[in-house]
Amino acid sequence: MNVISLAIWTLEKNCFIVYSGLIVCFIAFTLYHKNKLEEYYSETSKKEKMARTGTGGKARDFQDDGDEDPDLLVPAIPEDTPQIPYSPPQRSDDEILQRSREYYELMAERRTVRSFSPEPIPQEVLDNLIKTAGTSPSGAHTEPWTFIVVQDPEMKSAIREIVEEEEELNYNQRMSRQWVTDLKPFATKPVKPYLSDAPALVLVFRQTHSWREDGKKRMHYYSEISTAIAAGILLAAIQYCGLVALTSTPLNCNARLRDLLSRPVNERLELLLPVGRPHKEATVPDLQRKKLEEIMVKI
Amino acid sequence: MNVISLAIWTLEKNCFIVYSGLIVCFIAFTLYHKNKLEEYYSETSKKEKMARTGTGGKARDFQDDGDEDPDLLVPAIPEDTPQIPYSPPQRSDDEILQRSREYYELMAERRTVRSFSPEPIPQEVLDNLIKTAGTSPSGAHTEPWTFIVVQDPEMKSAIREIVEEEEELNYNQRMSRQWVTDLKPFATKPVKPYLSDAPALVLVFRQTHSWREDGKKRMHYYSEISTAIAAGILLAAIQYCGLVALTSTPLNCNARLRDLLSRPVNERLELLLPVGRPHKEATVPDLQRKKLEEIMVKI
Repeated sequence: MNVISLAIWTLEKNCFIVYSGLIVCFIAFTLYHKNKLEEYYSETSKKEKMARTGTGGKARDFQDDGDEDPDLLVPAIPEDTPQIPYSPPQRSDDEILQRSREYYELMAERRTVRSFSPEPIPQEVLDNLIKTAGTSPSGAHTEPWTFIVVQDPEMKSAIREIVEEEEELNYNQRMSRQWVTDLKPFATKPVKPYLSDAPALVLVFRQTHSWREDGKKRMHYYSEISTAIAAGILLAAIQYCGLVALTSTPLNCNARLRDLLSRPVNERLELLLPVGRPHKEATVPDLQRKKLEEIMVKI
Repeated sequence: MNVISLAIWTLEKNCFIVYSGLIVCFIAFTLYHKNKLEEYYSETSKKEKMARTGTGGKARDFQDDGDEDPDLLVPAIPEDTPQIPYSPPQRSDDEILQRSREYYELMAERRTVRSFSPEPIPQEVLDNLIKTAGTSPSGAHTEPWTFIVVQDPEMKSAIREIVEEEEELNYNQRMSRQWVTDLKPFATKPVKPYLSDAPALVLVFRQTHSWREDGKKRMHYYSEISTAIAAGILLAAIQYCGLVALTSTPLNCNARLRDLLSRPVNERLELLLPVGRPHKEATVPDLQRKKLEEIMVKI
C-alpha cells in the first residue's frame, strides 16, 4: 500500500470526522468574516446617519457621552439665563444703504498677501482683533476657539521650519498633481519667508470639545463652521484696521505645531494667518472675483 | 435500509465528491469575503491617508479624478496670470489702533436674534451684502459658494414648513439629550416664525466642486472652511449696516431645501440666515462672551 492509497483509505474510513472538521472550519471562518463585515457595515451606517443629521458639523459633535446620567443633564450655560431686551441703534434705509456700499468697497480691497513688512503691530491692535473674532456666533454659545498670537522671533522661526518641511513633502508627495497645478498661478511654494517676516502669526485652533466645571465633557456643536466663521470676522477686522493677512491652511502641520505650542489634544489647528502691513513691493495675482449674478440667486 | 442509512451510505460511497464540493464552497466563500474586506481596508486606508493630509478640508477636496491626462493638467485659472503691485492705503499706528477699537465695539453689539420685524430691506443692500461675502478668500480662488436670497413670501413659507417638520424630528428623535439640554437657555424650538417674518432669508450653499469650461471637474479645495469664512464676512457686513441675522444650521434639511430651491447636487446647504431688523420687542439671552485671556495666548 503506497502513501496515496493509505491517505485515500484513511479519508474514506474516517469520512465523517473529515466532514465534521471541514464543516467546523467553514462555520468558524464564516462567523469570523461575518463579524468583521458587520462591524464595518454598522460603523459605516452610523457614520452615514451622523453625516445625514449634520450640515457642516462632524458626527462627533452630535454624539452623547456614554455616561448620560440624567442628574448630569444640565445645560452648559444656566437654563434660567434671563432674556434681556435687544434694541440696537435703529438706522434708516438710507443709512443702511450707505453703510452697505461703504463696507463692500472696504472689503473688496482685501487681498491675500504673501510678502510682509516686518514693522511691528501695536499689542492693543492684536488684542482688539482677537476680541473682535471672539464676538462670533457659535453652536450653543460654546465659543470653540483659541487664538495663538506669536510675535517671538524664535517661535516664528520654529513654526516656519515645521511648515516648510511639511510643505516640501506636500508639494512633492502628498498633494494631487491637479492641486499643485491649480496652485501655480498663486506662486505658492514650500519656502515661506513670510512666516518669519510678518510681525505676528495668528494660529486659529478649534476646540473639538472642552470640560465643564463639574468635570463633564462639554460638547462643541458645529465647532468647525463656528471657528471658520470667527476666522472670517477676524479677517474682516484685519482689513477694517488697515492691515493685511495671508489665509493659509497648513496642510499636515497640526500635530507638530500643536506640540510646539503646547496646545492640548482637544485643539486642532485650522488656519495660520500671518498678519501685518504688506511689503512695499508686495504683488498679488491679477485675479477677478465672480460677478454678483454668479454667486447670488434671488427668489 | 432507512433514509438515514441510505444517506450515510451515499456520503461514504461518494466521499470524494462531497469533499470536493465542500472545498469549492469554502474557497469561493473565502474569496468573496476576502475581496469585500480588502475593498473596505483599502478604502479606509485611503480615507485615513487623505484625512492625515487635510486640516479643515475634506478628503474628497484632495483627490484627483481618475482621468489624469497630463494634457488636461492646466490650472483652473491661467498659469500666466500676471502679478500686479498691491499697495493699499497706508494707515498710521494711531489710525489702526483707533479703527481696531471702533470695529470691535461695533461687532461686540452683534447678537443672534430670533424675532424679526417684517419691514423689507432695500434690494441694493442685499446685493451689497452678498457682494461683500464674495470678497472672501477661498482655496485656490475657487469661490465655492452660492447665496440664495429669498424674499418671496410663498417660498419663505415653503422653507419654514420643511425646517419645522425636520426640527420636530430633530428635537424628538435625532438630537442627543445633552444637546437638547444645552439648547434650553436659547429658547430654541421646532416652531420658527422668524422664517416667515424676516424680510429675507439667505441660504448659504457650498459647492463641493464645479466644472471648468473644458468640461473637466474643477476641484474646490477647502470648500467647507472657505464657505464658512465667507459666512463670517457676510455676518460682519450685516452687522456693519445696522441689520441683524440669525445664524442657523438647518439640521437634516439639506436635500429637501436643495430640491425646493432647484439647486444642483454639487451644492450643499451650510447655513440659513434670516436677515432684517430686530422686532421691537426682541430679546436675547443674557450671555457673556469669554474674556480675551480665555481665547488668546500670546507668545
